[in-house]
Amino acid sequence: MSLARRVTAELIGTAMLLAAIAGSGVMGERLAGGNAAIALLANTLATGAALFALILTFGPISGAHFNPAVTLCDASQGGLPWREVPAYLAAQIVGAFGGVAIAHLMFGLPLFFASRHNRSGLRQMFSEFIATFGLIAVIWGCVRFRPTMLPLGVATYIAAAYWFTSSTSFANPAVTLARSASDTFVGIRPIDAPGFIIAQLMGAAAATLLFRWFAPTLPKNAKAVMLSHEGNNHG
Amino acid sequence: MSLARRVTAELIGTAMLLAAIAGSGVMGERLAGGNAAIALLANTLATGAALFALILTFGPISGAHFNPAVTLCDASQGGLPWREVPAYLAAQIVGAFGGVAIAHLMFGLPLFFASRHNRSGLRQMFSEFIATFGLIAVIWGCVRFRPTMLPLGVATYIAAAYWFTSSTSFANPAVTLARSASDTFVGIRPIDAPGFIIAQLMGAAAATLLFRWFAPTLPKNAKAVMLSHEGNNHG
Amino acid sequence: MSLARRVTAELIGTAMLLAAIAGSGVMGERLAGGNAAIALLANTLATGAALFALILTFGPISGAHFNPAVTLCDASQGGLPWREVPAYLAAQIVGAFGGVAIAHLMFGLPLFFASRHNRSGLRQMFSEFIATFGLIAVIWGCVRFRPTMLPLGVATYIAAAYWFTSSTSFANPAVTLARSASDTFVGIRPIDAPGFIIAQLMGAAAATLLFRWFAPTLPKNAKAVMLSHEGNNHG
Amino acid sequence: MSLARRVTAELIGTAMLLAAIAGSGVMGERLAGGNAAIALLANTLATGAALFALILTFGPISGAHFNPAVTLCDASQGGLPWREVPAYLAAQIVGAFGGVAIAHLMFGLPLFFASRHNRSGLRQMFSEFIATFGLIAVIWGCVRFRPTMLPLGVATYIAAAYWFTSSTSFANPAVTLARSASDTFVGIRPIDAPGFIIAQLMGAAAATLLFRWFAPTLPKNAKAVMLSHEGNNHG
Repeated sequence: MSLARRVTAELIGTAMLLAAIAGSGVMGERLAGGNAAIALLANTLATGAALFALILTFGPISGAHFNPAVTLCDASQGGLPWREVPAYLAAQIVGAFGGVAIAHLMFGLPLFFASRHNRSGLRQMFSEFIATFGLIAVIWGCVRFRPTMLPLGVATYIAAAYWFTSSTSFANPAVTLARSASDTFVGIRPIDAPGFIIAQLMGAAAATLLFRWFAPTLPKNAKAVMLSHEGNNHG
Repeated sequence: MSLARRVTAELIGTAMLLAAIAGSGVMGERLAGGNAAIALLANTLATGAALFALILTFGPISGAHFNPAVTLCDASQGGLPWREVPAYLAAQIVGAFGGVAIAHLMFGLPLFFASRHNRSGLRQMFSEFIATFGLIAVIWGCVRFRPTMLPLGVATYIAAAYWFTSSTSFANPAVTLARSASDTFVGIRPIDAPGFIIAQLMGAAAATLLFRWFAPTLPKNAKAVMLSHEGNNHG
Repeated sequence: MSLARRVTAELIGTAMLLAAIAGSGVMGERLAGGNAAIALLANTLATGAALFALILTFGPISGAHFNPAVTLCDASQGGLPWREVPAYLAAQIVGAFGGVAIAHLMFGLPLFFASRHNRSGLRQMFSEFIATFGLIAVIWGCVRFRPTMLPLGVATYIAAAYWFTSSTSFANPAVTLARSASDTFVGIRPIDAPGFIIAQLMGAAAATLLFRWFAPTLPKNAKAVMLSHEGNNHG
Repeated sequence: MSLARRVTAELIGTAMLLAAIAGSGVMGERLAGGNAAIALLANTLATGAALFALILTFGPISGAHFNPAVTLCDASQGGLPWREVPAYLAAQIVGAFGGVAIAHLMFGLPLFFASRHNRSGLRQMFSEFIATFGLIAVIWGCVRFRPTMLPLGVATYIAAAYWFTSSTSFANPAVTLARSASDTFVGIRPIDAPGFIIAQLMGAAAATLLFRWFAPTLPKNAKAVMLSHEGNNHG
């Protein structure tokens, strides 16, 4: 699969993911009549279900990272070549902002408008550390031992983490940046984004080190990480 | 499998799908005590779960399109022969209206009554374009790379799209027509139906072109699309 | 697997299923603060999830019918020998009442108390006809074409049918009888039970005839129906 | 896999599980506006989804017991050697308390504070007996007949049991102990914990005896229980 195709898949997949996150947040809040739990249930269901369908769809093309933390972890273990990392990260960030704009367009909001949702403080950063540690642990666990279960593992983990972390589990630097441009249910103040991203990268690194200890070698070869879904129709 | 059997499967499957969409809409609205988010959660759960079970059940017989947009995309790529397309479309449309009538009968409503639910405007059409683009992308992604996951991929995508699109993702011309004859939670004014259908067909075409670029050839042969579920018990 | 083991599995599995249906109905109604939609969502989630886990657990032992309509359909197509049918039906009915009693015990209610929930009329019977037609269609579709998906297919279908049928889809004569002895959220007046059961058997027969036409022969041999889960670890 | 690695996996996995249980309980209660059913729906979704993802992730390393009742059942049938049992139990208990502390930290609560949630009485103990009987039945059923479905079987069973048992299904001695140190939605008074644990062990023993009768021999060899997930990518 050529780099152009893979980068396009990352861009479109991340855009669809962000449209799902932001759009369902708006719809949930509009319909829930002030009950934040019902709005978050809808947001959780839509995010988890979209994540599953999108990893299934784009995984065989690009690996369906949709997440700079995943791309960096993958490259650090010899998966994606470092020279392709910038293109992946750019596609994810551009796609994430594009997806937020699509959601805003569908719901009649400004294309971009800075969030005023305060998510500051060490507890929120600790929460993002835990959220991303768990996400990357699930990914490495599935990649090493049963790659065909990766889409469902990631989707169910994120659905759970929306509820058990106090930050509602962003766990993704591109998602964090794009959600800072959405003053809706899922927003985050731009000023709070750097703290989230630092905590996410630390959590990702911790999980990667843990799974290097658990199972030092990847199955077959390093490329298997990114291509773990391909050529397998039994999932 | 003879054309008579396949067309019957399309008709019964589409009828069950519409009964599930319309019936759960009525039940959700009646029980939810005015909270539209709870009604839509119930509608989403029922639609997604029914879609999964019905694709599983009728997929090996007819391909379980239940959707003229899917049938046209399939034919355009050499899947279903064009001469069989009219019978598929007719079965889907007749089945869709039949399913709405079954739901109305169960809940003591008129067999058919025109919806007054306003779903007009370019934003709603843009939303249907996005919804159908995503649906067809998921279908082509699964068909090309892991056909056994198609039922779950389609069901989770539609469940997500009910929430992240402002039009609640009809994404299906036969569903759109039949829902115009139901003045319930899931209705759409007949006058708004053509705009939805045009947007759906454009979204379907865009996704088909994208996946032709991603992976030009279908697995094995064109018939594989429609029969992608058959002879595989490992899903 | 000896008949004693299989009948015990039917009895315990059906008891667990009814405990799940009745218990979650009580819990849902107690916690939902008068919102019937939230109570039914909880009841749906618990029933669908329990059904999936129980078919998975007991399917390889007894076929996990838990339902006289399923047992009769299976026998009619040469699956279960007719001489074993009475033991299956007895186990299902005894297990169903036992499960209701277990739920009542856990929640501090009388062991049995007749329901006063009115579910009479032709619309309710039509609803049960549709509900059971769909259930048996899903079972025959999965059994004939992809048996390992049967547990998930049945569970998702029933979850959907709780919402899209006006009778909330009993679709099971043993369940109907036992729920007549529970004056709770899930009850049915004893006087309404016979109409439900007649409609269920008619729906089951219609689906069986349809799938005989779709695919006349069962895979391999008749025993395969009941044992369709066995010896397959790839599901 | 060395004992150190396996014990670390049990500790981290149980910690993540308890963080999910306690954290989602706090989040659910805070957002639900006083509706306990909505809080429990959120708690159920998060617990079930996390359990699935964590068994998937850590199962191939340690068997993903996360539960002293499971470890004791496994050892009793020749799975885990008895000499490794103390390390497993210690890791599960330490991990469980650690996970509760992580949740408390994320949500700004004291590290540990004794619950005042009254869960006393024979009905609650009977409920835990039933809950754990069902859990161990699902585990033995999956392990003996289709090990790759174990993660989904356990997760769906627990999600159902949160609703159909009057005790909300702790079904795990380590979880019971740790939840006694959390005066939140999911707490249990320390004085009620011993009764729960006794009932859980009795339920686990009953299910183990039943499945010894159903299927006396484990597949291949005793080690297969713990390692049932490994080397299988078809799930």
